[in-house]
Amino acid sequence: MTVQLLNARDMDFLLYEFLDTEGLLQRPRYCEHSREVFDATLETAKTIAEKYFANHNHKGDEQEPTFDGERVQMIPETKEAWDHFADAGFLAAHYDFEDGGMQLPEIILRAAMAYFSAANTATAGYPCLSLGAANLIQSFGSDEQKAKFIPPMQEGRFAGTMAMTEPGQGSALADITTKAVPQADGSYLITGQKMFISGGDQSITENIIHMTLAKIEGAPAGVKGISLFIVPKFLVNDDGSQGERNDVALAGLLHKMGFRNTTSTVLSFGEKGGAVGYLVGEPHKGLAYMFQMMNEARIFVGSTAAVLGYQGFNASLEYARERPQGRLPSNKDPESKQIPIVQHADVRRMLLAQKAYVEGSLALCLYASSLFEDSHTADTPEARQQAFMLLDLLTPIVKSWPSKYALKANDLAIQVLGGSGYIREYPVEQYYRDNRLNPIHEGTEAIHGLDILGRKVPMGNMAAYELFVKAVEATAAEAAARETTSEMGQSLLAALGKLSRLNAVLLPMLAKDPDLGLANATLYLDVFGRITASWIWLQQANIAAAKLAEEGALSVDDANFYQGKLQAARYYLEWELPEIDPQIALLESHNSVPFDMQDAWF
Amino acid sequence: MTVQLLNARDMDFLLYEFLDTEGLLQRPRYCEHSREVFDATLETAKTIAEKYFANHNHKGDEQEPTFDGERVQMIPETKEAWDHFADAGFLAAHYDFEDGGMQLPEIILRAAMAYFSAANTATAGYPCLSLGAANLIQSFGSDEQKAKFIPPMQEGRFAGTMAMTEPGQGSALADITTKAVPQADGSYLITGQKMFISGGDQSITENIIHMTLAKIEGAPAGVKGISLFIVPKFLVNDDGSQGERNDVALAGLLHKMGFRNTTSTVLSFGEKGGAVGYLVGEPHKGLAYMFQMMNEARIFVGSTAAVLGYQGFNASLEYARERPQGRLPSNKDPESKQIPIVQHADVRRMLLAQKAYVEGSLALCLYASSLFEDSHTADTPEARQQAFMLLDLLTPIVKSWPSKYALKANDLAIQVLGGSGYIREYPVEQYYRDNRLNPIHEGTEAIHGLDILGRKVPMGNMAAYELFVKAVEATAAEAAARETTSEMGQSLLAALGKLSRLNAVLLPMLAKDPDLGLANATLYLDVFGRITASWIWLQQANIAAAKLAEEGALSVDDANFYQGKLQAARYYLEWELPEIDPQIALLESHNSVPFDMQDAWF
Repeated sequence: MTVQLLNARDMDFLLYEFLDTEGLLQRPRYCEHSREVFDATLETAKTIAEKYFANHNHKGDEQEPTFDGERVQMIPETKEAWDHFADAGFLAAHYDFEDGGMQLPEIILRAAMAYFSAANTATAGYPCLSLGAANLIQSFGSDEQKAKFIPPMQEGRFAGTMAMTEPGQGSALADITTKAVPQADGSYLITGQKMFISGGDQSITENIIHMTLAKIEGAPAGVKGISLFIVPKFLVNDDGSQGERNDVALAGLLHKMGFRNTTSTVLSFGEKGGAVGYLVGEPHKGLAYMFQMMNEARIFVGSTAAVLGYQGFNASLEYARERPQGRLPSNKDPESKQIPIVQHADVRRMLLAQKAYVEGSLALCLYASSLFEDSHTADTPEARQQAFMLLDLLTPIVKSWPSKYALKANDLAIQVLGGSGYIREYPVEQYYRDNRLNPIHEGTEAIHGLDILGRKVPMGNMAAYELFVKAVEATAAEAAARETTSEMGQSLLAALGKLSRLNAVLLPMLAKDPDLGLANATLYLDVFGRITASWIWLQQANIAAAKLAEEGALSVDDANFYQGKLQAARYYLEWELPEIDPQIALLESHNSVPFDMQDAWF
Repeated sequence: MTVQLLNARDMDFLLYEFLDTEGLLQRPRYCEHSREVFDATLETAKTIAEKYFANHNHKGDEQEPTFDGERVQMIPETKEAWDHFADAGFLAAHYDFEDGGMQLPEIILRAAMAYFSAANTATAGYPCLSLGAANLIQSFGSDEQKAKFIPPMQEGRFAGTMAMTEPGQGSALADITTKAVPQADGSYLITGQKMFISGGDQSITENIIHMTLAKIEGAPAGVKGISLFIVPKFLVNDDGSQGERNDVALAGLLHKMGFRNTTSTVLSFGEKGGAVGYLVGEPHKGLAYMFQMMNEARIFVGSTAAVLGYQGFNASLEYARERPQGRLPSNKDPESKQIPIVQHADVRRMLLAQKAYVEGSLALCLYASSLFEDSHTADTPEARQQAFMLLDLLTPIVKSWPSKYALKANDLAIQVLGGSGYIREYPVEQYYRDNRLNPIHEGTEAIHGLDILGRKVPMGNMAAYELFVKAVEATAAEAAARETTSEMGQSLLAALGKLSRLNAVLLPMLAKDPDLGLANATLYLDVFGRITASWIWLQQANIAAAKLAEEGALSVDDANFYQGKLQAARYYLEWELPEIDPQIALLESHNSVPFDMQDAWF
């Protein structure tokens, strides 16, 4: 079963109707581009993704990487895919012209990446990580570091990783124990062990640059003592040629449920005395730097979840249209023809829910990329600042909502296929396994719950939250003024009011009793997510309703497309948004049933 | 990581406090037994399960069965497990003494099976299917058929399967096309193809008995033309010795996401002219007979889901108690000791939700087995009839609720382990993959939604539903009269009232517009499931509260145990039951957003 990659009509809608991507052409950085350049970039991405990534999505799952003690063995298609990706310039595309790039906007790069991840999320993991690692050097590295490491990363000769997690601490970065000892030449010797390092070793590139968190001897305890280092697999001579093997060894591969063609590694630093590392920026500021990569990675995780959900939706829709089975309850004639299952009410529900989750997720992630873009290139400092604040507020949602609900979409895709959904002869079970990683890495749901309730909403005297409220109110007001969307506008406005009242109850408790105050933060994250998703859907509904109201201008295909958007918005606001009511009741009462549970009672 | 099989204290509670299993000893069929016999049976099951089933749960997943064109190749531990199961007498235990059995009650057999499924759900699949197939012959076969096939099935020389599904119809059995042509000797020649047949071929037993649905030439269309046949893999001579190979061939194996050590097969009947089959009972009544096996299988599926969830709970609880990571939000001292993650509020929530799902599921399934028992051996015809009706009503819930929520428990178990939960080095990801089958087979969620709303609730002028209402009211009344449980009793009573009012709105629509009336049946199933689960939990809470109120009689362990039951009940009734409110609002308004969605709008 060949599954269509995303949906070009929807991508078009999201970039050019839902978002004003064409408006970027007015900004100085993009004045030499055109919509044709953007579209051609996406077309190239889609073509390479179809040809060199989708071809081994199943194979890379069935024949995962292995380690023979010397080298990582991988199916050869992986390197081929990497090479085509690099040759097409995607590792450099977003850099300025003067830095060897094509000066493409973030959102076009992210839309392009969506095609690669949709085709083969595991193989696409390598370039994604590498892009993030190079961005980190570009932002915080010295000129010398940039000159030495970025060009080979742009060319695809080197790949990059983020080496944070250790066996002993998991998500609690404050407790990392990897040690850095300063050397006379200004470098450091790094010793310690890192775990769950994606792409930590592979047989694709000639070198790997590990962006590594470690504590310099004598550093303060906790997060204030973390520094960031460049630790290459092979040292790089001053002329750029390969130097000797650095003291970073692959201790072993981990064997994942899905996402298998991305290696997950345990790395040992300094088994032979110490791995050479180069400090990035200032000492003890590593976590702050790394947050840039993590925040990028969080949008990327949301986006990966979205497109995995999207592929399951595409596959199950195609199956439901082609698979005849059973009859409507009203038809009691056993000799009548079977109907395609898309005509069964519950199958339609499962497809519509998927549509709401996956198109909503992709819209949310592209919106986040547009905020990222605006935070760098919007016309005024105020606009840049506001975009930054909104993105900062919403990052936990952008990471978590797709990870939860596009995974739920994959679950529904399996259910639409029934028994066929459960077997590896069809692609949907792999999407489900691949996607299960996304609620875990780059911060579990719990961590993002703590982040949004404990930090993002209260920050700056709720300034970012107030921006969010204004934006949602504007969308709701537009919807309320139009008959077809009026009820949805009112529902969203009511929900927003409930959220603001909830904040007034919860935030005082954070100071009074932070443990109880944050106890139900994951539930709060879900409430915030449902309201955000409703907002994203209502924006799409507003556009669709306006288009449908235009007289006689629409083709049949366009009319169907906008009707679908409207119906998915209705589904989300009528079926999923109201679940916030019992959730808010629990939150407002500081329900402590799980909090009060004792270990001994289990 | 060795995971404890279920929880002996809870099993004891469920059998002897929640249910009155000891009371069975008063019935004539069990008067020669004792509680010691019951307990020894479970102890034997647990011992064999630990030694011969748990040992290859992971291995059977990593080295799934293969087909070399001649034979199915399986890891040898599978046959060893089967042999120990058979040697211990579990394939015959529930038969009467005079039929070669041990006359053990259904509920003890099911509790024993729970240990095997917990240890290795895939390997346990073979005996479970075989038990059901033999029961079918025992209930509906001729004396000759019983004499020929049941003894070797009791001994474990033959295994049994249920061969219903075909490539062309999936769940819509009305449309099967497998054909049976009567022969002069009274047998039939069967031709056709069956798909997704679990255990349809294997290398464990010397023969396999396929309980096969087919249509006799000239039979009426639809379900009224389906007959049931015994189709052995090898014909059996009159003296019981193996005859020639029957014309049933393994066309291929299907490759599942989980549950891998149970083969899933495509079988071809009659490639060489026709497979010999023997009609069971009367022609055209096959589906009614098969429903016995399906109903048994449905309880078994619920129970398998429950114990897979249970194992995930056990594994994640153990991990959470041992894994140190991070500190409470109130503790800002980075030099203080890390705490075990069970102390984090959100981890406790995830563990408590798992406890509610999995102990609730197991309680529900054992309750169903007790109804099955009562429907056969209760003292009066009225009591037997009432048990039958309640079981008939609740079978869709018993199958679906654990399949949905114990799977959700497995999802939470992964989340508790974080990155470790996603790798095959830990057991929880396999439980999740194994369990994903359960919402599909033996009727998808949608089918059980249609069944409960369209048939079970209205049947007999709602007589079974009224029995359910009385039972729930009694539990709620007991709870309402006690301070610690009073609020829960009131909540459940209110929910029950809402359900009855909902029925009054929905049932008239079934006649008026069955397509719309049944459109949201899956949602109704979830509402009914939440209320049933709340009832199951409130019964447990009543017992726990009564025990805790006894003065000074409890050991610390018992007090902790009952506190845990009470807290899990509170969790379920406060966190999960209230979600019926938005669901009921959608149902009562006959919300038609998914129903109105058009294929062309996707």
